[in-house]
Amino acid sequence: MKSNVNYDVIIIGAGPAGLCAAIYLKRAGITPLILEASAPGGTLNKTHKIENYPGYQDGDGSTLAFRMYSQVEALSVPFKTEKVINIEKGNDSYIVITENNKYTSNYILIATGKTPRKLEVTNADTYENKGISYCVVCDGALYKDKDVIVIGGGNSAMEAATYMSDIASCVYIINRSNVLRADEKEKDVINRKNVKVLLNKKVKEVLGDTKKITGVILDDDEKIDASAIFVCIGQEASIAYYQNLNLESDNKGIIVDNEMKTSDDNVYAAGDSVSKDLYQVVTATAEGAIAATNIIKKIRKSNS
Amino acid sequence: MKSNVNYDVIIIGAGPAGLCAAIYLKRAGITPLILEASAPGGTLNKTHKIENYPGYQDGDGSTLAFRMYSQVEALSVPFKTEKVINIEKGNDSYIVITENNKYTSNYILIATGKTPRKLEVTNADTYENKGISYCVVCDGALYKDKDVIVIGGGNSAMEAATYMSDIASCVYIINRSNVLRADEKEKDVINRKNVKVLLNKKVKEVLGDTKKITGVILDDDEKIDASAIFVCIGQEASIAYYQNLNLESDNKGIIVDNEMKTSDDNVYAAGDSVSKDLYQVVTATAEGAIAATNIIKKIRKSNS
Repeated sequence: MKSNVNYDVIIIGAGPAGLCAAIYLKRAGITPLILEASAPGGTLNKTHKIENYPGYQDGDGSTLAFRMYSQVEALSVPFKTEKVINIEKGNDSYIVITENNKYTSNYILIATGKTPRKLEVTNADTYENKGISYCVVCDGALYKDKDVIVIGGGNSAMEAATYMSDIASCVYIINRSNVLRADEKEKDVINRKNVKVLLNKKVKEVLGDTKKITGVILDDDEKIDASAIFVCIGQEASIAYYQNLNLESDNKGIIVDNEMKTSDDNVYAAGDSVSKDLYQVVTATAEGAIAATNIIKKIRKSNS
Repeated sequence: MKSNVNYDVIIIGAGPAGLCAAIYLKRAGITPLILEASAPGGTLNKTHKIENYPGYQDGDGSTLAFRMYSQVEALSVPFKTEKVINIEKGNDSYIVITENNKYTSNYILIATGKTPRKLEVTNADTYENKGISYCVVCDGALYKDKDVIVIGGGNSAMEAATYMSDIASCVYIINRSNVLRADEKEKDVINRKNVKVLLNKKVKEVLGDTKKITGVILDDDEKIDASAIFVCIGQEASIAYYQNLNLESDNKGIIVDNEMKTSDDNVYAAGDSVSKDLYQVVTATAEGAIAATNIIKKIRKSNS
C-alpha cells in the first residue's frame, strides 16, 4: 500500500457481496474499509423470508444480514455508515467522497446492488414486505395455490408470471399499456390456463388487512383479490456516485469479466450491481469472494 | 417429463453445489433425485472449521453440511445413498446406474466434486483434519504467526505458500524433486524472507500429539516443527462414472459455460467438479443455483 493511501481496498455497499468480499480480504491479511449508506445486509433486510440460502433454514432476511455482518465485525473490519456521493480517480488511486469524509484506496469494490422500481400507489408503502414482493424466486413458494398479481409487461414480468403459474392457483398480469413489451417466447405464459392478462390497466390502490395484502383496486375500480403482488417494473442502479469512473454498463448493470473486474482495471463490482442472469444471495456472495480473491492476487503481485 | 422417465433431473453428489441446486429445483416445483455415495455435505465434512461462508460463523464443516441437508430434507427431495457407477445415454434421456439400481432422467447435474490427492505417509491418516489441510483459503487464517509446511512444487503449492507467507511466521515448502514445476511468476514466493524451500525431500512421517500435528520427519531424518501441513500435490476427479458421456474437460475439471452447461446439452455440472479458478463453498452454492435455474428454464420451455 502506498503510504499516502488510506486503504488497499474500499468496499462500497454491505450486502451479501460486500460482506463476503470483506471476509475473504481480511482473512487474507488485507483490511478493507466498508462504506454503507444504511444498515448492513442490503436487500436481505427487505426480504421477508430466505428459503434458498443453503445452511440458513426458514429465517428472515434481516437475521441473515445480522449474522453476515457479525462475522465481518468479529474480523475487525472497519465499517462506516456513510453514503458515498462521488469517486474521483487520482493517479494511481481513488478518492472516495462521502457526505462527511474523503478516503483514498488502491482498489474499489462496488457492491451497492440495485433497487427495484417501486409501485407508487395508495397503500403500497404500508404493505411493503407484507405481500408486495420484487422477487418470485425468493418469495414465490410462499404463495402455493394462492392467487397472485404480477405487475409489468417486460421479460422479467413474464418470467415472474411463468414461475408463479406453476405454483400459484391463478396469476393476474396487470400491464399499464395495451402491449406486452416482453419477447415473444416469454409471452407464451399468457396462454396458460391459470394466467389472466389485464392490459391497459393500472393499480390504483393496494388493499389489505392489518397483516397482509388482500388484493388491489384498478383504475377502472375493478377489485382483484390476491395474496401477493410481484412488482416487475424495472430496477434502478444507484449509479450517480460512480459516474465519474465511466464504467461500461448495460441495462442490467455494470459489465464485469470472469474475475468481477469492471472496465476500469482496479475497480471491481459484485452482486446485484453487475450485469448478469441470476440475482440471488448465493450468487452475490460468490461474486464477492471471486472479486476479493482477484484483488488479493493483484495486491500480492504488486507487493512482491 | 416423459412418462417412461423416472425424474426430470438427477443430481449426482450432495455437497453444497448439489444441495443448493436441489433447493432451487424443488422450490420451482421440480423434484430432482439426489444420489450420493456417502454422507451429504461433500467436502464440508472434511473441513474442520468454516470461517468464510457468510452467515455461518465459526462452526465446523459437518454442522454446515447437516444444516444444508436438513433444508433439502424439509423440502421432501428424494435422497438415496447410492454410488453411481455409470451413466448411459438413451435417446432423449439418461440412465444412471448405481451399484443396486437404475434410474432415468431428462437432465443430469454432476456435482461430485474433486478429491485432493492425499499424503501417503506414516500417521497422515491419523492427523487428517487435525492440522493436515488441502486449502489455505479455507484454513490458512487459523495459523497466524505459526510455522507451517506446504507440500508440493506446482502452481497451487506456490499459491498456498504465497498466501501463507503473509499470515504464518514461517512457511516450509517441501518438494520431492529438485525442480519446482510452478510458473516462474508463481515462484517469486521462494525469495520471501519467511519462506524456506526444501528440494529433493520427502515427508516420511507426520508427528503430533493427541490433538494436532506438531511437525514432520523427512526422509533424511530431519525433523521440522510446524502447526499445519498444506498438501498441494494435485486433485483427482472421480470421473469413472461419467466417462461414457465424453464431456469436455481439462486438468481442472469439467468444462462448463456461463449457464453451467457441459459439452452435452442436457448435462450440467457445478461445484468442485468443474474447471474454474475459485473452489469454495460460496462458489459451489452459486453454481448449483445457476445450473438449477437454467435447467428449470429448459424444462419450462419444453413443457410450454
